[in-house]
Amino acid sequence: MQPIIILVEPQLVENIGMTARAMMNCGLTDLRLVDPRDPWPLHEVMEERMLAASSGADDILKKAQVFATLEEAIADLNYVYATTGRTHDMINRILTPRAAVPEMVERIAADQKVGVLFGRERTGLVNDQIVLANAKITIPLNPEFASLNLAQAVLLIGYEWYQAKDATPDRQLHTGSSRPATREEYMGFYKRLEDELDKGGFFVAKEMRPIMVRSLQNMLQRAEMTEQEVRTWHGVISALIGIPKLRKGNTTP
Amino acid sequence: MQPIIILVEPQLVENIGMTARAMMNCGLTDLRLVDPRDPWPLHEVMEERMLAASSGADDILKKAQVFATLEEAIADLNYVYATTGRTHDMINRILTPRAAVPEMVERIAADQKVGVLFGRERTGLVNDQIVLANAKITIPLNPEFASLNLAQAVLLIGYEWYQAKDATPDRQLHTGSSRPATREEYMGFYKRLEDELDKGGFFVAKEMRPIMVRSLQNMLQRAEMTEQEVRTWHGVISALIGIPKLRKGNTTP
Repeated sequence: MQPIIILVEPQLVENIGMTARAMMNCGLTDLRLVDPRDPWPLHEVMEERMLAASSGADDILKKAQVFATLEEAIADLNYVYATTGRTHDMINRILTPRAAVPEMVERIAADQKVGVLFGRERTGLVNDQIVLANAKITIPLNPEFASLNLAQAVLLIGYEWYQAKDATPDRQLHTGSSRPATREEYMGFYKRLEDELDKGGFFVAKEMRPIMVRSLQNMLQRAEMTEQEVRTWHGVISALIGIPKLRKGNTTP
Repeated sequence: MQPIIILVEPQLVENIGMTARAMMNCGLTDLRLVDPRDPWPLHEVMEERMLAASSGADDILKKAQVFATLEEAIADLNYVYATTGRTHDMINRILTPRAAVPEMVERIAADQKVGVLFGRERTGLVNDQIVLANAKITIPLNPEFASLNLAQAVLLIGYEWYQAKDATPDRQLHTGSSRPATREEYMGFYKRLEDELDKGGFFVAKEMRPIMVRSLQNMLQRAEMTEQEVRTWHGVISALIGIPKLRKGNTTP
């Protein structure tokens, strides 16, 4: 179960299509339309424009439900959020999307049907519509330029929804087909590098040697090398000291 | 200081305009373009299309810097993030936007110049471009439909940026010109309600009375009434029990 996205009096079919795309990006599938400007089902030309704007999110549009009034569109819902950028002279709970979404997740887990209202382009939701909702969501954005495209408002709510459900680690090291190097592989490389630098006369001031070794090691640690990369850097040293690279299949030096 | 948004080889001037709008929504102002498809400065017709799509974010577009190569565009930066939806066969740090942004905030506070790369429409960034960045950002989205419009990718990074800097409380009760009711005002109202319900014969089963009173109180608590609303509900009771409403200025019953 998911929050139901409800567009109230959408004016442009392109925006309905782009909303479907944003929903699909975020794994949302349930779309309701209240009194869209263009009569439903759409004229073929209009439908094509909507589908083009959806970039392939056709399924959502085909399953979309259309209602004549907002009251009918939300009749079966247990909790309704109204998105709005303006501070109305109304008494209401105002949530950020980041606070509202965990609440939605809990409500839905408790088998509540939850909907989120988005007003028409330019005007947004009006007071008579907002009062039908249980709470308001206001997206914190630049107060001097807060007007969002309809599909972008849907995207930001959907994005928060997806993040709340998603288990992607915040940080990961993608190592391709290789694996992170072991301590032993690092140590072997440091030893080799140190030996060859000794031979090349790198450590002129003997008393500086420990500090210089440590700072080289420190830099290489930060790089989080893979096993493959350690081998590549062994090859780099070999090349720099004049050992010719082995041809594949030729294992004698 | 802010992260610099860098569009690499953008193909459509409308997307450049919509990117500027999304940036302005999020309080970002620095835009760089690398080798845009349409030569810069734009032909008048193209410029009009871009400005129309920006919905008033002209300033960002007028100040935008254009570079022939990605190398030149990032030469003065200390840390560069590459946004990408695909898992490349490359070894790299991958961050979510939510993890990357606090890092950006720290870097910028330490006077580093930070940039975020966005690839061209359809293809995104290619490996030769990604390797010029220090880390990758991948936005967790529906893996079966992850392709975002260029401006929407910028919006999501900008949104996280704005949230990290913004101090809007997660939850607030907007009470308009009134103030939340005091405990005394609540208690006075409960007492009145109870008295009038007694008179009206509401509490038929005496042993149920404490439970019923408690559940009425509990519901009213949840509503978080303002002082004005408590007065309104006193008026509701008065009307229901047949006390005519006082005209303004007429204080005698």
